[in-house]
Amino acid sequence: MRNLLMKVDYDGTHYEGFQTQPSGRTVQDHLEQAICQLTGEKLKITGSGRTDAGVHAYGQPFNFITESRIPLERWCLALNTRLPLDIVVTEAKEVPLSFHSRRSAKRKTYRYAINGNRFPDAFQRRLQYHHPTPLDAEGMQQALAHVVGTHDFTSFASRKSTKESHVRTIYEARLEIDRSSCRPGSKDQGILYTYITGNGFLQYMVRIIMGTLIEVGEGKRRPDDMRAILEACNRMKAGPTAVAHGLTLWSVEYDPCMLTESRESNENLIQQNGN
Amino acid sequence: MRNLLMKVDYDGTHYEGFQTQPSGRTVQDHLEQAICQLTGEKLKITGSGRTDAGVHAYGQPFNFITESRIPLERWCLALNTRLPLDIVVTEAKEVPLSFHSRRSAKRKTYRYAINGNRFPDAFQRRLQYHHPTPLDAEGMQQALAHVVGTHDFTSFASRKSTKESHVRTIYEARLEIDRSSCRPGSKDQGILYTYITGNGFLQYMVRIIMGTLIEVGEGKRRPDDMRAILEACNRMKAGPTAVAHGLTLWSVEYDPCMLTESRESNENLIQQNGN
Repeated sequence: MRNLLMKVDYDGTHYEGFQTQPSGRTVQDHLEQAICQLTGEKLKITGSGRTDAGVHAYGQPFNFITESRIPLERWCLALNTRLPLDIVVTEAKEVPLSFHSRRSAKRKTYRYAINGNRFPDAFQRRLQYHHPTPLDAEGMQQALAHVVGTHDFTSFASRKSTKESHVRTIYEARLEIDRSSCRPGSKDQGILYTYITGNGFLQYMVRIIMGTLIEVGEGKRRPDDMRAILEACNRMKAGPTAVAHGLTLWSVEYDPCMLTESRESNENLIQQNGN
Repeated sequence: MRNLLMKVDYDGTHYEGFQTQPSGRTVQDHLEQAICQLTGEKLKITGSGRTDAGVHAYGQPFNFITESRIPLERWCLALNTRLPLDIVVTEAKEVPLSFHSRRSAKRKTYRYAINGNRFPDAFQRRLQYHHPTPLDAEGMQQALAHVVGTHDFTSFASRKSTKESHVRTIYEARLEIDRSSCRPGSKDQGILYTYITGNGFLQYMVRIIMGTLIEVGEGKRRPDDMRAILEACNRMKAGPTAVAHGLTLWSVEYDPCMLTESRESNENLIQQNGN
């Protein structure tokens, strides 16, 4: 019995998010089917969290307990040959049985991509929200600074949220502009990447922050309005939920000690659990 | 009456190439439909050349003669709202009536992308041929040097070619490796981009050069074999036709004087033609 931690990249365009749904059109459903085809095990994997329909991920961790003896180095290729081309498993390692992809996660980073050029990018359009009219990037950066810290994010959470607490800590939030795609002599603004790192995120939280930030960029709100919106703890005060396809789960970090408990203590844990 | 030169980007994944086909599933068919919806004109556009099914293009020129008085700066947006998301018109300008996108072209460049990393890229897979086993990039570069110059490219042309002459001039051919996607400690080789610039290309020519080059990279042929293959003027001597989806028409260049004939001489030409 082993606990395997893997990382998966996916282009979320054609999926209803990571987490299993009755339709079966999720990344989790495809991963579980591929594992079942490979090992015969009908098991449940644990993802580092949900992603909304249409959201992408780069290296999203998931783990599962398997009886399979397939060597570690064979797993990625064996799963990839059983997965659609837009879902790619890129890493596999053994972790302590106590490891849990979601509960053990310490920091998550999301990236939101806005194409501020006059025309959409025919090749990257699935990963970018196209916003050709002018955006005040400096104002957006000022607004973004307000979300850093520990706050009640009720204003930036889905009204359907059933979480007991809406308090989350944002460690870092920054805007980077890649101007390499700007056409000379044009009013192209380049690609605006917003990276937000926190200890956890509520449903729609990054997308509502982005929807509000875009209104700041459009001059419809002032950068400092972010503070009042946070304090209001009222979803009505924030901007709209930005479209899903600009969002990518960018990284999930764990305490290194969670990943490297000794094999011996694993075996003790198995015996203690009576397995 | 104006001759308009435009540039179009397209992700060729879902199209049967640029040039019109009875199926109507080509880039040209979509562009002509969009123009017809916009101006009511059932006209034929002239592309800078054909592309094979599944091949992409970045800034492919095309031109057409229109009676429409829509201002130049409105055309791109007006067409893009009538085109699928994977076809994007990015430039429009008026050129002399004598200008012809294909006949006036002086230099064309194609790019072929090989992903040499262990795993495919979930996001860029449409634009890259995945080749995870080792490639001898240095040998490929040596082989590539042999195609530069003026040669009879019969060995690298479709056997169905009906062109009178298979002599073409390659001005430049180079291999660039982007290692930014390599995972630390892996055997990832990065993305290998081959750029080939010439005065014209026969059907499948770049893809057969690439298929042969990949065999050099795999150690199945020596770099200097390229010379003997060229001299043989026999398609059987070259390697296979590399898959279409790695190929992108990268740029098409014109003599600047072809683009900038004065407006007056256009009007003279119209009068002379009796139009």
